Amino acid sequence: MKTVLVTGASGFVGRHTLGALAARGFTIHAVSSHGVSLAGTKHHVCDLLDPAAATHLIDELRPSHLLHLAWFAQPKLYWTSTENLRWLEASLRIARAFCDAGGSRLVIAGTCAEYEWNGTICNEQTSRVAPATLYGASKHALQLALSAWANEVGLSFGWARLFFLYGPHEHASRLVPSVIRAALDQSAIRCTEGAQVRDFQHVADAAGALTALLDSDVRGPVNIASGRPVTVKDVVNTIADQLDVRRLVELGAISLAPGEPALLAADTKRLRDEVGWSDHFDLSTGLADTIAWWRR
Amino acid sequence: MKTVLVTGASGFVGRHTLGALAARGFTIHAVSSHGVSLAGTKHHVCDLLDPAAATHLIDELRPSHLLHLAWFAQPKLYWTSTENLRWLEASLRIARAFCDAGGSRLVIAGTCAEYEWNGTICNEQTSRVAPATLYGASKHALQLALSAWANEVGLSFGWARLFFLYGPHEHASRLVPSVIRAALDQSAIRCTEGAQVRDFQHVADAAGALTALLDSDVRGPVNIASGRPVTVKDVVNTIADQLDVRRLVELGAISLAPGEPALLAADTKRLRDEVGWSDHFDLSTGLADTIAWWRR
Repeated sequence: MKTVLVTGASGFVGRHTLGALAARGFTIHAVSSHGVSLAGTKHHVCDLLDPAAATHLIDELRPSHLLHLAWFAQPKLYWTSTENLRWLEASLRIARAFCDAGGSRLVIAGTCAEYEWNGTICNEQTSRVAPATLYGASKHALQLALSAWANEVGLSFGWARLFFLYGPHEHASRLVPSVIRAALDQSAIRCTEGAQVRDFQHVADAAGALTALLDSDVRGPVNIASGRPVTVKDVVNTIADQLDVRRLVELGAISLAPGEPALLAADTKRLRDEVGWSDHFDLSTGLADTIAWWRR
Repeated sequence: MKTVLVTGASGFVGRHTLGALAARGFTIHAVSSHGVSLAGTKHHVCDLLDPAAATHLIDELRPSHLLHLAWFAQPKLYWTSTENLRWLEASLRIARAFCDAGGSRLVIAGTCAEYEWNGTICNEQTSRVAPATLYGASKHALQLALSAWANEVGLSFGWARLFFLYGPHEHASRLVPSVIRAALDQSAIRCTEGAQVRDFQHVADAAGALTALLDSDVRGPVNIASGRPVTVKDVVNTIADQLDVRRLVELGAISLAPGEPALLAADTKRLRDEVGWSDHFDLSTGLADTIAWWRR
């Protein structure tokens, strides 16, 4: 019997994994820091930064699989917050506790911020890893240490490098929600020039990919992305066109933050060929789904 | 007033740092897991793997400087032991506690095992870092995360990459002690062919270099090494010649362990020019000093 513990289960990505895990026959234990009711799961409230509490929960549940998504995720602040170091520490402890309790398959959320942002397509084997932020460095430190450790202890360990996600339940301050909300309010849609190219993926597809990765024995880093890079301008205009408010779009009203590369996109061959995942949404249907959610 | 907390103070490297720290005017708090008396220091017995104990000690002492040398160091086992992951976790916690308690200068022992062993001289800025072992990966993960964190919190952080050390108090099973002891016993000195080139440094010089680094504001990785690579055969023959037992040397009696590179040596320009350190011992005087210690 496959039993999975999902950390960060009430988060943006986590909540979208639950249905996909159920469909794959997992018994699901969801853990989050506050008591959100999540259909079809056994829900546990636990502060994972508390060493004793996290270890106790894992000892009690003895899951065969661990999908570790919990991290400090407050928009903007997460890039530089010292909370990253606490989550690195906690994640090492959680991985050890999982292994000690007999777990066999571990998947953890990494990030495209581990790669050097040099304007080339990010490939898991050939691209240079050189995180420029505390967030990227903390995530990559976790991968580096746990990969070597998993080899020694014989644990199956997959590392999911997430790129740019959008969809229902995204924080209202982020790009796609802020454009949709402005459009629905008929107010100005103020954006950067939008020439920068990014890999946008619907969060339900990212969750599906994570779940497929967890249910496989694929080890090491795997890019979780759509493999279909688009400009930010395309994203903004697609939303505006679907709501028939292209006249409200003000490209160039905001200047691009320093350090933003012209291209940040993923090679998704591993995800496609080794994990066997393909997305259900394209940009148009994914944004339509997201608009429908915000309308509700 | 400069107050330093030295972890791993009773270890091979740590005990050699104490005199050098005293000479630089530091008030010294030494911590180790067992009660060894170390002259001129305030000694604290503490299990640094115990989160509460380590944090409590640092809160109480509030040192301005931290020289963190403690790690799992059992010969041979340390390359692959899962203890590496516990020490990574503990070291993150110790660094945070030090910063929270008002510390300003942190130096931690890294390792030449962080570098890719590709037969070129290891340079801090230009060489590829690609640890092949759990030990090297855990140490490098620590550097990666703490460097980014130290930038955010404004802590001065130096990272000391140690190479091959020898000298008084080295574990008897390691190369130099085992050759000296066999020579003193007039028994066969069984070695590899010994063509592999390494950077050997007397531990007192390594300790002096660490202390100079701690007493500076040099940040990022610094190779701690002699900068004078020699063959293992040279080391063995120098010992044998000083004890007039060259006839006992059996080069090639042992085969080289897999993964041992032909050359593993350090560029020491940063140590020399930025830290301002130069060694007191050369290979001949350093080995003579070590032989004298084993004779006692």
